[in-house]
Amino acid sequence: MLDNKKLTPLSAIGEFGLIKRIQEKVTIQQISTHKAIGDDAAVLEFIGKQILLTTDMLTENVHFNLMYTPLKHLGYKSVIVNLSDICAMNGTPSQITVSLAVSNRFSVEAIDELYEGILLACENYGVDLVGGDTTSSQSGLIISITAIGHANADDVVYRNSAQKGDLVCVTGDLGAAYMGLQLLEREKEIYKANPGIQPDLQGNDYILKRQLKPEARLDIVELMHSLKLKPTAMIDISDGLSSEIMHIGLDSGLGAKIYEAKIPIAEETLKMAVELNIDPTISAMSGGEDYELLFTIRPEDYEKIKNLPDFTVIGTMTDVSDGFKLLTRDGSTVQITSQGYNAFLEQS
Amino acid sequence: MLDNKKLTPLSAIGEFGLIKRIQEKVTIQQISTHKAIGDDAAVLEFIGKQILLTTDMLTENVHFNLMYTPLKHLGYKSVIVNLSDICAMNGTPSQITVSLAVSNRFSVEAIDELYEGILLACENYGVDLVGGDTTSSQSGLIISITAIGHANADDVVYRNSAQKGDLVCVTGDLGAAYMGLQLLEREKEIYKANPGIQPDLQGNDYILKRQLKPEARLDIVELMHSLKLKPTAMIDISDGLSSEIMHIGLDSGLGAKIYEAKIPIAEETLKMAVELNIDPTISAMSGGEDYELLFTIRPEDYEKIKNLPDFTVIGTMTDVSDGFKLLTRDGSTVQITSQGYNAFLEQS
Repeated sequence: MLDNKKLTPLSAIGEFGLIKRIQEKVTIQQISTHKAIGDDAAVLEFIGKQILLTTDMLTENVHFNLMYTPLKHLGYKSVIVNLSDICAMNGTPSQITVSLAVSNRFSVEAIDELYEGILLACENYGVDLVGGDTTSSQSGLIISITAIGHANADDVVYRNSAQKGDLVCVTGDLGAAYMGLQLLEREKEIYKANPGIQPDLQGNDYILKRQLKPEARLDIVELMHSLKLKPTAMIDISDGLSSEIMHIGLDSGLGAKIYEAKIPIAEETLKMAVELNIDPTISAMSGGEDYELLFTIRPEDYEKIKNLPDFTVIGTMTDVSDGFKLLTRDGSTVQITSQGYNAFLEQS
Repeated sequence: MLDNKKLTPLSAIGEFGLIKRIQEKVTIQQISTHKAIGDDAAVLEFIGKQILLTTDMLTENVHFNLMYTPLKHLGYKSVIVNLSDICAMNGTPSQITVSLAVSNRFSVEAIDELYEGILLACENYGVDLVGGDTTSSQSGLIISITAIGHANADDVVYRNSAQKGDLVCVTGDLGAAYMGLQLLEREKEIYKANPGIQPDLQGNDYILKRQLKPEARLDIVELMHSLKLKPTAMIDISDGLSSEIMHIGLDSGLGAKIYEAKIPIAEETLKMAVELNIDPTISAMSGGEDYELLFTIRPEDYEKIKNLPDFTVIGTMTDVSDGFKLLTRDGSTVQITSQGYNAFLEQS
């Protein structure tokens, strides 16, 4: 933890001091980066590629709670949510810009911790930090990240191009990030009621890591490339399986049928679901923040993935008139609905 | 003005409702935009061009005051500050993304007004709105915009490539935006002390427009292109002439000499300077937000610009050992200093 007595106020180094401090920590890895931080704009060059551009804004107490989110993890995750969007287009992320609004309760050392996480994500994914902006806010921390990626024109995968009969596939496992959040929220409430009690997080490393330090599935994009497998449609799972399958279905003019028994859920997620008395299927369908990839493939491509542990076929794309159906373990059929994530209802 | 009784809370339409509402208003103008809003990322394609990428974050009560800034103007200006950065690289802006964090005191109608300004700037500059994010904030409005532009590799102009003996040029006139701000601040204080008094803004359209609805000098980029004039270095004037000439000088390893008498200042700016008892040179040197272009040219290129009313030569680049000097009207020499804009000191 940071020693409060030795912290430096941001006003001591100012905006330009902060930019310089960040600039000194950045190393450039991409040949497509011609000029990074230090001019009016970054200069990039991609020869024969299409450019992918995505942006996400994270606000304190809406998207994250600093009571249980270490700043380094927050920085890491803020980058990952954007890289995940590039992966969901079947692209390779290559640059990001980071803009921050911080209240003056943050110290230079706190911002350093945040950037440690940001730059670790950059290092792990071969991405360059090429620009940004840092300013003050009246309350709380706001992080706005834009990611740039690239892909050959033929490789870009959209949401709206699934075909009837395509298999619905998902990577990794679902619901763990949500269960990690529930655990953190439980321990926060216990701590608030009795600050003398240490949080009981033992043995839950997996679900905590999924919530606090998720990864983008660039490995899957690369694996599919080497398998010469191009999904017919793809999206990343940021809002939960229900919402994402409906995006693919509605945009493609189709319905979908998902088998509950096929949804991959980790042991650790199931264990915590029992402990917290939450239906694990609900955490997978509506939990969100898993940052796995949901995609559709032609049935004849099944051979390419059937033996790969990271891929699970969970259903098929159906006629639009069939709607979105979950076939439960007990043999009944449930309508899949999605209200999406409404940040405007989450406000305190 | 909006009728308070008929306003719709943002929670009534939600995040997806808001995205849809914005998407319906957007028209695509650029052939480089393959896919705009509606997938995990926008898809762009620039054949044989370098990509320019810049981002700015504006926070309420730090960068703008909603007491005297109409939301439509704020939206317009938020886009302009980014387009200006693309122009400062000698590039053409083509796409933007817009992320907002809004507190729930904003209505759907207020966000509509903001986007009216954003989309008007897009229309005026031929720029496509291709993505973004909208979420809630605990207090205040935060706008984060990223702009993409393009240029031929040979045309990109950096800050660090001025040469000793180059002429220092500026477009338009300086200090007006700052004087407009001072006028608005004066009227705000009068209004706060006595809400019955109407603000006295008559006859000050020019300086108010420069503050509230500035323009990016894309016309200058196009003019220089047609003149086959490539500046040796360029920057846009967002923080005031002092700060910007020092960026060019320090990055190029040079000093600079500026003639006070040559600095272009509009009649309206001079008039308000007298009224408010502010030195007009200070408003030009330190005021900022003019969004004019400051650039250096080889002396032999002077012929190309000497008869153009939009260009003024205000000095020359000198040896680094000469530092940064302002030669005043009375014949004395003053050291140019710049602390830059320190947003962290501006907080209430």
